[in-house]
Amino acid sequence: MPSEHILKAFDEELKRLDNLIARMGGLAETQLARAVEALERRDGELAAKVVEDDRAIDELEHEIDIASVRMLALRQPMAADLRSVIAALKISSDLERIGDYAANVAKRSIALSQAPLIAATGVVPRMARLAQAMIKDVLDSYGLRDVDRAVAVWHRDQEIDDMYTGLFRELLTYMMEDPRNIGPCTHLLFIAKNIERIGDHATNIAETVHFMVTGKRLWEARPKGDTTAYAVVAPKEGKEV
Amino acid sequence: MPSEHILKAFDEELKRLDNLIARMGGLAETQLARAVEALERRDGELAAKVVEDDRAIDELEHEIDIASVRMLALRQPMAADLRSVIAALKISSDLERIGDYAANVAKRSIALSQAPLIAATGVVPRMARLAQAMIKDVLDSYGLRDVDRAVAVWHRDQEIDDMYTGLFRELLTYMMEDPRNIGPCTHLLFIAKNIERIGDHATNIAETVHFMVTGKRLWEARPKGDTTAYAVVAPKEGKEV
Repeated sequence: MPSEHILKAFDEELKRLDNLIARMGGLAETQLARAVEALERRDGELAAKVVEDDRAIDELEHEIDIASVRMLALRQPMAADLRSVIAALKISSDLERIGDYAANVAKRSIALSQAPLIAATGVVPRMARLAQAMIKDVLDSYGLRDVDRAVAVWHRDQEIDDMYTGLFRELLTYMMEDPRNIGPCTHLLFIAKNIERIGDHATNIAETVHFMVTGKRLWEARPKGDTTAYAVVAPKEGKEV
Repeated sequence: MPSEHILKAFDEELKRLDNLIARMGGLAETQLARAVEALERRDGELAAKVVEDDRAIDELEHEIDIASVRMLALRQPMAADLRSVIAALKISSDLERIGDYAANVAKRSIALSQAPLIAATGVVPRMARLAQAMIKDVLDSYGLRDVDRAVAVWHRDQEIDDMYTGLFRELLTYMMEDPRNIGPCTHLLFIAKNIERIGDHATNIAETVHFMVTGKRLWEARPKGDTTAYAVVAPKEGKEV
């Protein structure tokens, strides 16, 4: 049997892991907020800073990986403790991707700051605020081991997907109206897609929290992805290009 | 000390894990090939099949997760063995994403099959073949624990990124030429982006194999992502829309 001393050490390491995840999540949330701020204010300097700061998130992921693997090796946790360590590994990888997407939003906002303003830009910050709230809530659900909160985040992804689908169609009409919009609208399309993907990763984290706490999969028809992949924007008459 | 019996059981479980990863990788590779075939042949039926079959990859991921966590719990592996199990967890999550991207390519090819043919469609299969080769080679590097092969895959990602960047610019010009191209070109843009992301995930797997075998990170300026995020396609004169 493990001694009380070892149990206490493990609990402290687990708390440290929780802490690292919380910090990483906070960074990811902030990076997204700053990227969108850079987009709204057309602030290339801020955007460049966001791109640069992505490195800090990558470093935290590595730190969490090292800490998790070390705990698996030295403490050989079982059952719920084991699931917690595995969850940390999975969540850090989702947060790393969220950071990447935020950095990509920032990069594209640099290009956009040199292009004419597109009216639809306003939808993007709304989408981003939703995504930010999802990141925040899902990290709370992790910190509190609160399954209900995780499930609520999981369901909320649909809202972002719907906004994305609407924006997708709107941007296509802008492009068709004026070819000069095509460049900036394409960037905006990818920015929106990045935010939609951030929502997917928050959904992943919700699934991980569910598994961590209950030991069971949150498995129904997963509300994944947007539906624009099926959107047919056919021209009036067929034409071979 | 663990008995020989336990060591043998662990080796067998590890072999089974390798096998699951190999199978999952094979499925992912095939899914990408079929999705691109559906795109080239404008075959909506095949595309629908690809979308449906994504479920098999998701199931394999779950199987690998369960097997890995079970091994961590029951066998409490150390050092290289521990890294192997962690690697399986990480690789299965990359392969699951590759499957998702292949399914998305298939979905979009359904929409494209109803639109006029775009000349640039030909670049996409070339990109896809590169991505497929990367998946195949990186899985070989995993099976053989061959670091050199993994590093070679890691470097090859640049080629896909370059093709993507070229295609991105080409597609923008098609869109500008004729607004009827905007819908199909947008789908093609996302298809190419999906394939570019598949290359990124192959790169991730290469990094994981490197860490698994050497215990060290493959860490330089990682050849990640495309550069089109910075592409400025500014109109001749500024115009507020």
